[in-house]
Amino acid sequence: MNSLDSIIAYFEESFREEIKNIEKSLPHNLYEPIAYSLKIGGKRLRPALVLHAALMFTKSVEYILPAAMAIEIFHNFTLLHDDIMDMADVRHNEPSVQKKYGRNVAILSGDAMSIMAFRYFTAVTNNRMHLLLPLFSSTALQVCEGQQLDMDFETRNNVSVEEYLEMIRLKTAVLIACSLKIGALMADAGQTEANLLYEYGINIGLAFQLQDDWLDVYGDPEIFGKKKGGDICANKKTYLLLKAQEMCDPATLLHLNSWLSKSDFDPEQKIASITAIYNKTGVSDITRNLMYSFQSKALNALDKMEIPEDQKITLIAFAGEVISRIK
Amino acid sequence: MNSLDSIIAYFEESFREEIKNIEKSLPHNLYEPIAYSLKIGGKRLRPALVLHAALMFTKSVEYILPAAMAIEIFHNFTLLHDDIMDMADVRHNEPSVQKKYGRNVAILSGDAMSIMAFRYFTAVTNNRMHLLLPLFSSTALQVCEGQQLDMDFETRNNVSVEEYLEMIRLKTAVLIACSLKIGALMADAGQTEANLLYEYGINIGLAFQLQDDWLDVYGDPEIFGKKKGGDICANKKTYLLLKAQEMCDPATLLHLNSWLSKSDFDPEQKIASITAIYNKTGVSDITRNLMYSFQSKALNALDKMEIPEDQKITLIAFAGEVISRIK
Repeated sequence: MNSLDSIIAYFEESFREEIKNIEKSLPHNLYEPIAYSLKIGGKRLRPALVLHAALMFTKSVEYILPAAMAIEIFHNFTLLHDDIMDMADVRHNEPSVQKKYGRNVAILSGDAMSIMAFRYFTAVTNNRMHLLLPLFSSTALQVCEGQQLDMDFETRNNVSVEEYLEMIRLKTAVLIACSLKIGALMADAGQTEANLLYEYGINIGLAFQLQDDWLDVYGDPEIFGKKKGGDICANKKTYLLLKAQEMCDPATLLHLNSWLSKSDFDPEQKIASITAIYNKTGVSDITRNLMYSFQSKALNALDKMEIPEDQKITLIAFAGEVISRIK
Repeated sequence: MNSLDSIIAYFEESFREEIKNIEKSLPHNLYEPIAYSLKIGGKRLRPALVLHAALMFTKSVEYILPAAMAIEIFHNFTLLHDDIMDMADVRHNEPSVQKKYGRNVAILSGDAMSIMAFRYFTAVTNNRMHLLLPLFSSTALQVCEGQQLDMDFETRNNVSVEEYLEMIRLKTAVLIACSLKIGALMADAGQTEANLLYEYGINIGLAFQLQDDWLDVYGDPEIFGKKKGGDICANKKTYLLLKAQEMCDPATLLHLNSWLSKSDFDPEQKIASITAIYNKTGVSDITRNLMYSFQSKALNALDKMEIPEDQKITLIAFAGEVISRIK
């Protein structure tokens, strides 16, 4: 068991059992939506990273499972509440909790999930609890800060590329980094090794989000699973948009901004025009190069770790997959 | 420093400083509403109970402050999210967070407050952390369960008095009980003493909520601060209503239920008619007697505690105030 896929399968098996217990808990109207949101779930990437990081330092990771579940429950809580704030009706191709059960149930179920995440953590008996809980609670708070910045950006016209990178660091990267560090700490890794894994996680998280931004414009919609250009239509301040605004000449900037201010437009035409500006400005390559740079920083951190090289293979491969993935 | 009022003043002084730090935190749009909600605050009853319980076993309680703050922040988080769910515009005579800052900000600020509560807890270095965190997280989850039951009751017509008492136990009593137990545990009290304080807290919490129900009908609105009969107008399933429905004769029940089903009514008339039914059924005395019974159970628990009697005076007095309070 050392590739991420087999770890995901291992986690999923235990988690399905746990979801069944959650589903049976009372009051039913609180726990059924929670079980639903966990069932429609996602890739289980974060808990797999918790378990994998532990496996880099120890052989048996059953005792790590509650912490991995805590991270996954917390991640799903953030998605659930994001869907209320965005009034999103669909999550992982299924009705979102707020669509299926209503807004108030979604608020309260999300609240309970956030608390459950801490509760699963406290179920862990580990001599490093004094390190784990401050790390997890700080990270959780950073994710909220990232979400707030993301919301702030919606109504701001002067977001810099640096601010954007800080936002995605908080909203996406820190939880991935925290997952790895928690797994390592729980498996008695040294602080240096745990911090290097954290550094790997931050850079992989940043690359991951940039790839998401890039795929919205340059991905194959058949494979990516989302309609291409969704971010463009919604004027979402992605790295590509902000970089294009920063780089393009005044005339092109005027043209770009005129598209952003149109409330009535043909989506295909808007996507084509803005994509043309992106192509002209070269932001595709710039974005890809920045991803490579984050990938390289991640691999450097991994390289510095004083563990057998064959223990690094999975994360080396993962660093490649993150930026070559097509969905 | 041994009466609750002086403890509240002691807590408030430190908490005001802490709120200033929170207010300065970034992003501003996340932390300003949090600081606002904590500033408009309430009676600071729960943190005072944390500190008082500790003072029953130790002299210096400065190291307990972060835990007391955690409890107060958590309590204010529940109020904040309740106000979204109830679409309440006013909290403590000020605009609620959702009214002042909007729904999405209120959701996210509340989320951050819940996480902050855990973070304040993890800032505590106490050799009983392994007891404190499971207690706090279980309690926090129970509060969500109580809120869900409360919401469920709104659309149910067959709520029993027992179910109602279980709902208020979860929604109100467990956090009061947990506050006392946490203070005691952190001050190295024995498990037996800590559990007796918990039992005291549950019974006081139940009495507290029943007094709230009673004051809505029989309180002096000038003093109580809320318009009398608010619960009656809103068909809120209070102990008085449920007990009246359980006890009154078939003709009176028909009359009572006809008032509940009216969507168009004169509020004064509805309040007068339902109060008359309450008077006829004797639910005022029944409610007061149940309060006395909870008070008595609380005092019994206190009585069993093997600590000097003069250490119990404040909580004995508090048990009296809870059910004699007029606001």
